[in-house]
Amino acid sequence: MPKTILYLDPDSKLNLQNQIRQRLVDGILSGAYPPGSKLPSSRKLAEQLKVARNTVVLVYQQLAAEGYVVTRERSGLFVNPDMLSTRVGHGIVKAASTARTGSAWRRRIKATISDPATRAVPNWHRYPYPFIDGKFDPGLFPLAEWREACRLSMSVADVREWSTGNGDADDPMLVHEILTKILTRRGIQARPDEILITMGSQHSLYLICQLLVDKSVTVAMEEPGNSEFRHLLEQRQASVRPQPVDREGLVVDERLAGTDLMYVTPSHQIPTAVVMSPQRRKALLQAANEHDCLIIEDDYECEINYLDQPQPALRSMDTEGRVIYVANLSHVLASGIRVGFIVANADFIRYARALRHAMLRHPPLNNQRAVAFFLSLGHYDALMSKLARVLQERRLALRDALNFYRSVSIEISPEVGGTTYWVRLPPDFSVGYLASEAERRGILIEPVAHYYADARHAENCFRMGVTSLPLERIRPGVVELTELIRVLVSGRVEHLGTSLGQWLTGDELRDAMADKTIIYNVVYGVPCTIELHADGTMKGTAGYANEDCDVGRWWVDGDRWHRQWQQWVYGEEAAYYIVINDDQIKWFNEAQQLVDSAFIRTMVEPG
Amino acid sequence: MPKTILYLDPDSKLNLQNQIRQRLVDGILSGAYPPGSKLPSSRKLAEQLKVARNTVVLVYQQLAAEGYVVTRERSGLFVNPDMLSTRVGHGIVKAASTARTGSAWRRRIKATISDPATRAVPNWHRYPYPFIDGKFDPGLFPLAEWREACRLSMSVADVREWSTGNGDADDPMLVHEILTKILTRRGIQARPDEILITMGSQHSLYLICQLLVDKSVTVAMEEPGNSEFRHLLEQRQASVRPQPVDREGLVVDERLAGTDLMYVTPSHQIPTAVVMSPQRRKALLQAANEHDCLIIEDDYECEINYLDQPQPALRSMDTEGRVIYVANLSHVLASGIRVGFIVANADFIRYARALRHAMLRHPPLNNQRAVAFFLSLGHYDALMSKLARVLQERRLALRDALNFYRSVSIEISPEVGGTTYWVRLPPDFSVGYLASEAERRGILIEPVAHYYADARHAENCFRMGVTSLPLERIRPGVVELTELIRVLVSGRVEHLGTSLGQWLTGDELRDAMADKTIIYNVVYGVPCTIELHADGTMKGTAGYANEDCDVGRWWVDGDRWHRQWQQWVYGEEAAYYIVINDDQIKWFNEAQQLVDSAFIRTMVEPG
Repeated sequence: MPKTILYLDPDSKLNLQNQIRQRLVDGILSGAYPPGSKLPSSRKLAEQLKVARNTVVLVYQQLAAEGYVVTRERSGLFVNPDMLSTRVGHGIVKAASTARTGSAWRRRIKATISDPATRAVPNWHRYPYPFIDGKFDPGLFPLAEWREACRLSMSVADVREWSTGNGDADDPMLVHEILTKILTRRGIQARPDEILITMGSQHSLYLICQLLVDKSVTVAMEEPGNSEFRHLLEQRQASVRPQPVDREGLVVDERLAGTDLMYVTPSHQIPTAVVMSPQRRKALLQAANEHDCLIIEDDYECEINYLDQPQPALRSMDTEGRVIYVANLSHVLASGIRVGFIVANADFIRYARALRHAMLRHPPLNNQRAVAFFLSLGHYDALMSKLARVLQERRLALRDALNFYRSVSIEISPEVGGTTYWVRLPPDFSVGYLASEAERRGILIEPVAHYYADARHAENCFRMGVTSLPLERIRPGVVELTELIRVLVSGRVEHLGTSLGQWLTGDELRDAMADKTIIYNVVYGVPCTIELHADGTMKGTAGYANEDCDVGRWWVDGDRWHRQWQQWVYGEEAAYYIVINDDQIKWFNEAQQLVDSAFIRTMVEPG
Repeated sequence: MPKTILYLDPDSKLNLQNQIRQRLVDGILSGAYPPGSKLPSSRKLAEQLKVARNTVVLVYQQLAAEGYVVTRERSGLFVNPDMLSTRVGHGIVKAASTARTGSAWRRRIKATISDPATRAVPNWHRYPYPFIDGKFDPGLFPLAEWREACRLSMSVADVREWSTGNGDADDPMLVHEILTKILTRRGIQARPDEILITMGSQHSLYLICQLLVDKSVTVAMEEPGNSEFRHLLEQRQASVRPQPVDREGLVVDERLAGTDLMYVTPSHQIPTAVVMSPQRRKALLQAANEHDCLIIEDDYECEINYLDQPQPALRSMDTEGRVIYVANLSHVLASGIRVGFIVANADFIRYARALRHAMLRHPPLNNQRAVAFFLSLGHYDALMSKLARVLQERRLALRDALNFYRSVSIEISPEVGGTTYWVRLPPDFSVGYLASEAERRGILIEPVAHYYADARHAENCFRMGVTSLPLERIRPGVVELTELIRVLVSGRVEHLGTSLGQWLTGDELRDAMADKTIIYNVVYGVPCTIELHADGTMKGTAGYANEDCDVGRWWVDGDRWHRQWQQWVYGEEAAYYIVINDDQIKWFNEAQQLVDSAFIRTMVEPG
């Protein structure tokens, strides 16, 4: 038996048996327990770990059945010497270290890829006040209902159906449920061959653009409109024609002549949330027929429709088969699970299906079946009703808070629908600067300039949404934000002596920093989290896959806080004066000038 | 209470409570139980359904909590009148029927889409003898282990992590598990920012082609080679340079000069299964360095590697960062769940991540987490060991059967590796004809011509694989196939009087047809299933999403079998003589000539 001591984590979500199993397997595969080495008896291991002997016996039986260990008569249990024989390089040499050099990739890249401008802040859900529309707080996820649907989708018979894949076909059960439980709600009747399941609306739009758009094509888009769709059009080198939106939706006039394709979001316009009027819908379809033009109808955020008397989808009014209808499952489900769909004429769906097959075969069939059960049990309808109620409450809370706290220097746009409000800052004030300052206080807001083809139209606006923010956080979030605006607008320069908040020193400073988490954006926009432990160690994690980590030390010496990373910032020591103002931490340099600030909170153990 | 009687299906996989709930929800949403209508008391409904009263009480409580029904004091339970108020068209008019006309889509399609030539027969798993390589029979799916991994991935803490999405990041747990449990097996060391999770190998290759290939690029491909990758290159209008494969893998010689990109499948060549020799691997990397060329390494079917002493991946030997490594999870898992990954330099991964984001955001995070648990518990390694054993057994069974039964007229290629055998027919015999005749007897084989850029090389070959075929079916399948070849090669013309099998008439014919399922391909290649019920009704289902259905009648009149569909084949009646030969049914016309044949089996209830 290797000397390695097995350590059980009392906070693990695995049960004891699985924990022991995982540790043993890790040890065997990593070579910590070499092939042929003897394992301790179940009695001994049980004693060592302080668990029931039977627990260890069960683990050993499982490992033996799977070939990790072998029994030798009267000698005990050994790591199977053959288990690792198929592992490359085992017992021979360490694999050659992979080269990181010689990259010069840029010259090899043939595609036009723009970093999406609307990319949400990663880890947005770790901020206390994410006023971002279209994201949902995990508290709204229908956990018990989804577990039930998943469990049902894993019956022997169901797994037989979804585990093997089936060419380019979708799950017939899901197609049926969407036809009967979602499309009827939108007034749409369709046949199964008029539906294609996708990985969500973005995937639907990507497929459509690949099929219908190239540089010979002119596309009319709402102005302001969905900037991610505009990026897709730009990648396909289409001519984009921005067409204004008024209080009835897309303006239908002679400027639509000569377009091949129109992209509209009639039930909840992106980003204004205007609902297209019935008259306008009729006019739009008529214009499409006149100009021999196709319509992409993006039925964005169906949960919002509950707030108003919903209008039937354009697709349901289309007598010439010109409308391609795109929808997601509710974002609450779709963000993690990624299911959406396209409804269009069977001819078009056939092409889209062939392209999807070449691109990725089909969306995962296990998820298709689980979503089908979720719909068939009525959980989806119940979820939508609940969301309508919750979002209505939140919208009113935002309205009231904005009404009460707004500073005289800003302007709230009249209500147009949906769950967002638009805020306009004074003309000499940068909304980008406000957004980054707010982020340092844990508040996320969304500047809207990227929604405009001509960004001059909305330089000083931002949008506040409440889909991702629980009710009780709305008012404090608005208070923080308006306070920040007040301070910034008053044009105050921040020096240590006059800084808002508490200037901490000595033991007070040490106590204030211990066991805190700092959430931070490094200059090139990558998210970063720093954990300050009471014992003077600290740990930093950065990057989208937490790929950049470092550890270091921190301490207080007199009036200043010191820190030193092992590798980050050249491993050099630095010292700062610290001011803490509620959830904000501010660093001042030797000259007592503000250097940086971030959001700080008491450390929470995951789990 | 509406008069509708609730019917409970004793074979349903839902429990009673969920069945009752599903029926009631269906009824409410479809309008069968109109808003405001009264539901029966729990006592009455329990009596009617012969279930415990408490079961109904629980269903009613759940429906009330979700807003489907409301309680009125002293009056009972009613369908919530507001439940449907947000449903479009409810109580007003039926939605306008969607137009099917005006399609002329072909002229609008800008993309080059070829129907993939290698597309597997849909419903292949319903055939008794699918000798197709690379598909897996559902019996190999690790059901209990996958359920466990799924269950763990649905803890409250895990769902919080995966349900909201996180920009374009992947699940850090899955990235870690792939690094430590899969890549170590291939000798590859990588950092988290050098991995991108994809929807499987096809998706990986699609992303790579979009990024690196356009018409200015020359790509060397194995000949024969992966035809699906060749299609992707053709869609990007690349110059494709076929390079021969010998018994050591891709031939490395001066013909590789001037290529920008090479695509290779070194660990299990597609389709020959040759393993590239260590010398050849070194020569290939050297050639890539000399010609400043990138290599795409498709590590196809890692489960097969267990059969041989595995070679380290090219990526692990690459000192200049030229290799882009592509792999799937084992097909056993990935077919339904769709998880694969790319390993390459961080620069390239950054571009690929941005493209993936524009295309579909990210692969579903719930599946990423479940797969991560599957790996962390050691189930993946156990699965791979099991597959190696099972596939080895099957390969030997195929070898023995082919050896024993093969007819003198065919030639079996020497063994080269993997789990397939290549069979060559006489020069005057069409392998396409054999494949379609075999399919009618329930046997699927794979002609290999599409793997060749120059199809003359393999006109008369087909490939037989055993990954999707349980051990006990291999020998009977080979018997059936060789018998078929014998009959076809002997050039016999099939007439009713001399037809192989039993010519059935009268009661015998009626009995033979009752409760049978016929599996069929209609002329334009769409799969079709016909169920013949004992009561003389029949049901037909066709299309990839079962979108084309019809019902009809069948009967026996004297010597002939009659059938009439409501809509199919113009609703006209037709009569045939029938011969049944084992699992094959043959239809003969009035002139006693063979008209058609198909695969027939006793009807099996799903469940």
